[in-house]
Amino acid sequence: MASDPSALAQHIAQVALIDQHAHGCWLAAGDRRRFENALNEANTEPLAGSGFDSQLGFAVRAHCGPVLGLPEHVDPQAYWDRRRQHGEAELARLFLPPANVSDWLIDTGIQDDTATAGTAEMAELSGNRAHEIVRLEQVAEQAARAPGHYASAFEEILHRRAATAVGTKSILAYRGGFEGDLSEPTAAQVAEAADRWRDNGGTRLRDRVLLRFGLHRALRLGKPLQFHVGFGDRDCDLSKANPLLLRDFLEHSADTPIVLLHCYPYEREAGYLAQAFNNVYLDGGLSVNYLGARAPAFIARLLEMAPFGRILYSSDGFGPAELHYLGAALWRNGIHRVLRAFVAAGDWSEKDAIRVVDLIARENAARIYRV
Amino acid sequence: MASDPSALAQHIAQVALIDQHAHGCWLAAGDRRRFENALNEANTEPLAGSGFDSQLGFAVRAHCGPVLGLPEHVDPQAYWDRRRQHGEAELARLFLPPANVSDWLIDTGIQDDTATAGTAEMAELSGNRAHEIVRLEQVAEQAARAPGHYASAFEEILHRRAATAVGTKSILAYRGGFEGDLSEPTAAQVAEAADRWRDNGGTRLRDRVLLRFGLHRALRLGKPLQFHVGFGDRDCDLSKANPLLLRDFLEHSADTPIVLLHCYPYEREAGYLAQAFNNVYLDGGLSVNYLGARAPAFIARLLEMAPFGRILYSSDGFGPAELHYLGAALWRNGIHRVLRAFVAAGDWSEKDAIRVVDLIARENAARIYRV
Amino acid sequence: MASDPSALAQHIAQVALIDQHAHGCWLAAGDRRRFENALNEANTEPLAGSGFDSQLGFAVRAHCGPVLGLPEHVDPQAYWDRRRQHGEAELARLFLPPANVSDWLIDTGIQDDTATAGTAEMAELSGNRAHEIVRLEQVAEQAARAPGHYASAFEEILHRRAATAVGTKSILAYRGGFEGDLSEPTAAQVAEAADRWRDNGGTRLRDRVLLRFGLHRALRLGKPLQFHVGFGDRDCDLSKANPLLLRDFLEHSADTPIVLLHCYPYEREAGYLAQAFNNVYLDGGLSVNYLGARAPAFIARLLEMAPFGRILYSSDGFGPAELHYLGAALWRNGIHRVLRAFVAAGDWSEKDAIRVVDLIARENAARIYRV
Repeated sequence: MASDPSALAQHIAQVALIDQHAHGCWLAAGDRRRFENALNEANTEPLAGSGFDSQLGFAVRAHCGPVLGLPEHVDPQAYWDRRRQHGEAELARLFLPPANVSDWLIDTGIQDDTATAGTAEMAELSGNRAHEIVRLEQVAEQAARAPGHYASAFEEILHRRAATAVGTKSILAYRGGFEGDLSEPTAAQVAEAADRWRDNGGTRLRDRVLLRFGLHRALRLGKPLQFHVGFGDRDCDLSKANPLLLRDFLEHSADTPIVLLHCYPYEREAGYLAQAFNNVYLDGGLSVNYLGARAPAFIARLLEMAPFGRILYSSDGFGPAELHYLGAALWRNGIHRVLRAFVAAGDWSEKDAIRVVDLIARENAARIYRV
Repeated sequence: MASDPSALAQHIAQVALIDQHAHGCWLAAGDRRRFENALNEANTEPLAGSGFDSQLGFAVRAHCGPVLGLPEHVDPQAYWDRRRQHGEAELARLFLPPANVSDWLIDTGIQDDTATAGTAEMAELSGNRAHEIVRLEQVAEQAARAPGHYASAFEEILHRRAATAVGTKSILAYRGGFEGDLSEPTAAQVAEAADRWRDNGGTRLRDRVLLRFGLHRALRLGKPLQFHVGFGDRDCDLSKANPLLLRDFLEHSADTPIVLLHCYPYEREAGYLAQAFNNVYLDGGLSVNYLGARAPAFIARLLEMAPFGRILYSSDGFGPAELHYLGAALWRNGIHRVLRAFVAAGDWSEKDAIRVVDLIARENAARIYRV
Repeated sequence: MASDPSALAQHIAQVALIDQHAHGCWLAAGDRRRFENALNEANTEPLAGSGFDSQLGFAVRAHCGPVLGLPEHVDPQAYWDRRRQHGEAELARLFLPPANVSDWLIDTGIQDDTATAGTAEMAELSGNRAHEIVRLEQVAEQAARAPGHYASAFEEILHRRAATAVGTKSILAYRGGFEGDLSEPTAAQVAEAADRWRDNGGTRLRDRVLLRFGLHRALRLGKPLQFHVGFGDRDCDLSKANPLLLRDFLEHSADTPIVLLHCYPYEREAGYLAQAFNNVYLDGGLSVNYLGARAPAFIARLLEMAPFGRILYSSDGFGPAELHYLGAALWRNGIHRVLRAFVAAGDWSEKDAIRVVDLIARENAARIYRV
């Protein structure tokens, strides 16, 4: 991209992104094992091999090495030796600004033992704005511990948290998947399910009634509702994370924007849903990082059935600040590769390509999240 | 393609196509909203954004603009301003002939308030031949309104209509999908189901027994039986329109050609079925138009597992005559891109590539439809 | 590749492969019909058209013609005329050595009327090493015919055969598919199921209890366990051969390497599983041959989510010796095309690319099979 003097290439290199789905970067130091494990999303066990031996690992060496003053493709040991010379906050200050992200939308719902940046810290470390995305299952778990009626507690916590947040998120994919009834339960069903859950400890929500309750409360809020879709860790049964299974729910979701995250390997199905429903959006975050050299082919598939007003950018960075930077670097490279080819073939004009870059990079997100 | 002097490029530019699945183009004038909605297949609601903001919209501007004397990539407003200066029949006379289609196979079964061309009108407007494809669910709905036994009425209407038609079509995908038993029902089951359906009004057939009955009657007719597969409007549950679910039916379909239409995102599964069964064919109509600049990647996937004697061309044009033209333009561009690369890599000879173009463009269709 | 002087191209052209999944080539002469039918995997009926009219058929003419002293893309008749001048063993001596395979891993479990090479004959004909893969369903069918308790007989046969074999294989995909419970049955369940099966003749195992029993015995053996996944003949219901359905089984497979074979069109799902589980491997054999000119796109998708230490090479050749050679030729061409592009784009270094070639070509297989 650097060597391409076209207006399109220049525009892609410079446009400020809205990263519409990410988590906090690490704040506390850790060992090499932690770092390498963070380069594998799907495996919940300690890695048997090196986390560097993957498209993501190669992409870190190719794109993040130079940010640390190292040559491209530097070997893993040299990368780690340089990286460990910096604290995590210092690494965030090195990697976040060159991502050129004006607004980070931070899902604060991951419960993890490791200290990670919250919304305010992401803003401070990057020198940019940050906004919260409220995870619905976390709200539910807070409501389980709150006094009084579960439904009222959920509603109170959701509204309080959402007042300063820009959207909500569901990890239903990790709590049983999309298959089956997703209609709104009755108040009596909710009360009964909540009593049962509270009696059982009220942790790690998997009750379908309460999951459905949360989704419908989020719909009423009207702020964008994000869904984890497809690729993630193996706690998610990928065969039940196909977004086509959300069809009935989408039929009843009215005007609330529904954002399908990650989507791999269902990005074509997600694009179809974005064409089928006025309020459905899609995003390839997480997948782009994990695909590395193969990200352009994936980004091209995101540009199939979905109207261009419904495609969003995110990194889904979490943990190493490299991932927040890499998402942006790989997306810029990939969209450039894809759109340059569309223009070269005479299928798109360069002016159109630049406009679509702006829509995906920030305008679509700015419109629905009002940031 | 225009700038490629190779024999392959010249051949692709000139070969007359058989468009083996299309509907009529509009005959009556309409407003811009109607036109833009016709650029979105999946959404059954009025579009929230512009129908131009999609691969199909961009492809209309790139390929159809010049047919109207406009520059490539002309902006949507200018395109609309020029388009509205013509009546729909006049537009058909502009767009249909340059598609260079010798034979249109017209599915006449869409019930729509808008006046659209029938078989005779498509022939007249294009200056070429047109043939009918009879929609089975429409025959069923006609039989429901006919006097006497349902099965006899169905059989009589089917044979009468099929006498001048070249094939039949099922939209089972829209009437419950492919999942479940598709064996032939008994006469008693048919009679009982027909009574029930007629008692309930006999409209919009969704009864599985009668749907299965229609399929098996069509099989016996021996003329090619087309199935809507995959991508379509959201009334179709895409997760139940996977052609792999037709496996048992195909096992019992004997020699009647079965044509899998559209196929996105299941084109690889459809190609496998074409390899697995001597009587299965596949087609990428509709999808090619909606994929626009991404159509070459799709056309390449159609050329994976399917034997070359089982791949067909269609536009699935319906409504704006642009779509009947665009299908041909995008297919010619796409197959050129794909086959040129096969030849350049040394994987295919140019002579082979030209022969495969002829098979897909017209010879396979001419053979099974006898046109 | 021949014209590319790069170190990567030279390395790919010369690296000796471990073909980690193949069957024997033919030993007895046959007619043209047999040969053409062997160019179609999915169809279990005699072919209606020519087996040459497919990506595989074109690839045979392009790549195997020259091995027989014919020009590339020679026409089918001339190919057949030359081929028939040789005996099958002579053809094997022409095609196996230039595949440059140091070790053939031969699944000896296909029961076929045609005489095909066993492990020793493959070694002799190729001039290289050959090792056995024991098919579990064949062991079960041997145990059904053995005297005494079924479980003891199975265990005895498995251990005896596995003592000189390097791994096992399951064709569960052909015997009901992956859906449903795959946990280990109790001894009583096994005894009861075995009695029932033996009473019914003890042929073609489809009993789920005994299939599950076999898998868990193979796991305990600790040698790699291969699964037929995805693409195969139509006896396999492709919708039940999606490897995501193996998730629960994989969760309980501990450290035994599990190798997902073929994988088309589920190669992206298989790659995800290879990332999710430390002991899961994937392979694109069979598919690469059938994709011909489209093999590079498939090989690229194999390089998405899977760690590079978990990707293996195989041809899945069976019958015509062309297929054992072609798998190697197409893989070399395809991996070259894909990796050359990664390097040219700056995403990978050439050194990395060469290392990944070695991992896939032989090192990963050498490690898990200990050959």
